[in-house]
Amino acid sequence: MARESKGSLMTVRDDVRVLDATLRDGGLVNNFYFDDDFVRALYVMNVAAGVDYMEFGYRASRDIFDSDRYGKWKFSDDDDIRAVVGENCTDLKIAVMADVGRTNFKRDILPKNESPVDMIRVATYVNTLPSAIEMIEDAKKKGYETTVNVMAVSKVGREDLKHGLEILAQSGVDVIYLVDSFGAFYPEQIHRLMDDYLEIGDKFGKTIGIHAHNNQQLAFANTIEALRLGASFLDATVCGMGRGAGNCYLESLLSFLKNPKYNMIPLMKFIEKYMLELKNKEKWGFDIPYLLTGVLNSHPSAAIKFTKDGRKDYSQFYQDILDDIG
Amino acid sequence: MARESKGSLMTVRDDVRVLDATLRDGGLVNNFYFDDDFVRALYVMNVAAGVDYMEFGYRASRDIFDSDRYGKWKFSDDDDIRAVVGENCTDLKIAVMADVGRTNFKRDILPKNESPVDMIRVATYVNTLPSAIEMIEDAKKKGYETTVNVMAVSKVGREDLKHGLEILAQSGVDVIYLVDSFGAFYPEQIHRLMDDYLEIGDKFGKTIGIHAHNNQQLAFANTIEALRLGASFLDATVCGMGRGAGNCYLESLLSFLKNPKYNMIPLMKFIEKYMLELKNKEKWGFDIPYLLTGVLNSHPSAAIKFTKDGRKDYSQFYQDILDDIG
Repeated sequence: MARESKGSLMTVRDDVRVLDATLRDGGLVNNFYFDDDFVRALYVMNVAAGVDYMEFGYRASRDIFDSDRYGKWKFSDDDDIRAVVGENCTDLKIAVMADVGRTNFKRDILPKNESPVDMIRVATYVNTLPSAIEMIEDAKKKGYETTVNVMAVSKVGREDLKHGLEILAQSGVDVIYLVDSFGAFYPEQIHRLMDDYLEIGDKFGKTIGIHAHNNQQLAFANTIEALRLGASFLDATVCGMGRGAGNCYLESLLSFLKNPKYNMIPLMKFIEKYMLELKNKEKWGFDIPYLLTGVLNSHPSAAIKFTKDGRKDYSQFYQDILDDIG
Repeated sequence: MARESKGSLMTVRDDVRVLDATLRDGGLVNNFYFDDDFVRALYVMNVAAGVDYMEFGYRASRDIFDSDRYGKWKFSDDDDIRAVVGENCTDLKIAVMADVGRTNFKRDILPKNESPVDMIRVATYVNTLPSAIEMIEDAKKKGYETTVNVMAVSKVGREDLKHGLEILAQSGVDVIYLVDSFGAFYPEQIHRLMDDYLEIGDKFGKTIGIHAHNNQQLAFANTIEALRLGASFLDATVCGMGRGAGNCYLESLLSFLKNPKYNMIPLMKFIEKYMLELKNKEKWGFDIPYLLTGVLNSHPSAAIKFTKDGRKDYSQFYQDILDDIG
């Protein structure tokens, strides 16, 4: 492994940006039904804790998804965001995620000067990159910062992935994210992938980000490994809230970063007041079924169903996934 | 960081030994009160799963600790072990831990040919190394394999630690363990420490081990980082059971190792049948108070008390530890 650390454990890295994805990845747990009170408190906390970006949810199309079956953060309308942040006269920037094929971006993403949103995050698989690039260029033209989150790369061969990243890097996108959708990667693999992402990022002047999942209790470890090597955009969620095994814990990440602008106290207070109740109602986080799908590089959906069904026959489940991928 | 990986993610490393410390570190959760049925099933599982060593508990002195206030695995008498393992005609080796100053080793550790135990693990702080060496030499003379677990090294300066390790390495000990007692280390620090441990191990022909705690959800990440660099003895516990935030999960570790002798199915079955019940009764594992003591390099006792008291005022707790270490 050739790449050296960018700074030490004591370094303040001015390029680092923390993005709180609690509403978006956490919304996959509760179908985006968050109390307004919760969302407002999360926003206020993020501002006070020095978090750089807050992702509000998906900007999904109401033509595709039934508004009655999802909370409002599936759609993250500008007006709903504005009801929380007003004119957002803070240092915290606002992001929403737009899935390839699920967002009517031409209609639903207004020019930036008419919207409270600062950043459009385009989520794509490798095989839908051309559509992703169309969305990126649209958002850039409208004045937004943009990221592209290339999902499920643990299923893609290295050469195909590098080729895809090279194409992406020639678009107007600002940040290219390594996404460990299945929580399948070990830090050694994150290192190897970061070598590729950072090489391409350096070549084309793009920033690199990391979005990790906690199937193997490696979300935080993988995030700080990527950070050490040069990743700048770091996704995390409060109490790791997110689909299945969840994400990198924001409390771990803020306690790790040395920049004095990050502040743990507002985050601790938010957890006391809002998250404990939510944790009693909803289910996410590291557990054996997610470990097994992560180890076997499988989509967590089977583990989510297993958990929802209240099953505990882990040995049978393990055999079942082995059969599925065999 | 100079040290290269010893093998790749696909390598079977013949030097690797997995040690199940569930009874010993887990015993710190329930005062060593495990049902006989549980202990027997754990032994049978470890044999079937290909685990290399099973630690039965402490060999504490009954002169110091009241037998009525602890379960039998605080003392791990040879007869109690024999009642579980018989003559132990298996590939699994048996270990017990002996704390410096808390074991009457001259009286309570019999010659190996009169005992079912294969390995004595001596637990010490850096400032009690001379006593540890006395115990190691006694155990070696009696015919045992020996390890030394140097605790709380996150509180020791690098030069003092290296000096201590050099002294230890000149004893008859077989394995020297890096122990992250407070769950304070990041993988980068494990890397730096492993450089020192492995350098001294190479020089004196000693094997190196790792015993990690999960305060920052880094026990598994730190274990595989140490492994990658050359550590051979890897401690883990079923479901991470252990004091406070617990340990490296045995299920994560076995799923990671590539040696076909390790088998996940018996472990999954054991968890289904025995651990779920125990998890409902006892409390351990990653939680915010342990994260905070880990980040602040403090003993977990304050977090254990905070948790036991049912407190949830994390922000106040954080301030309190900051005051304590200030």
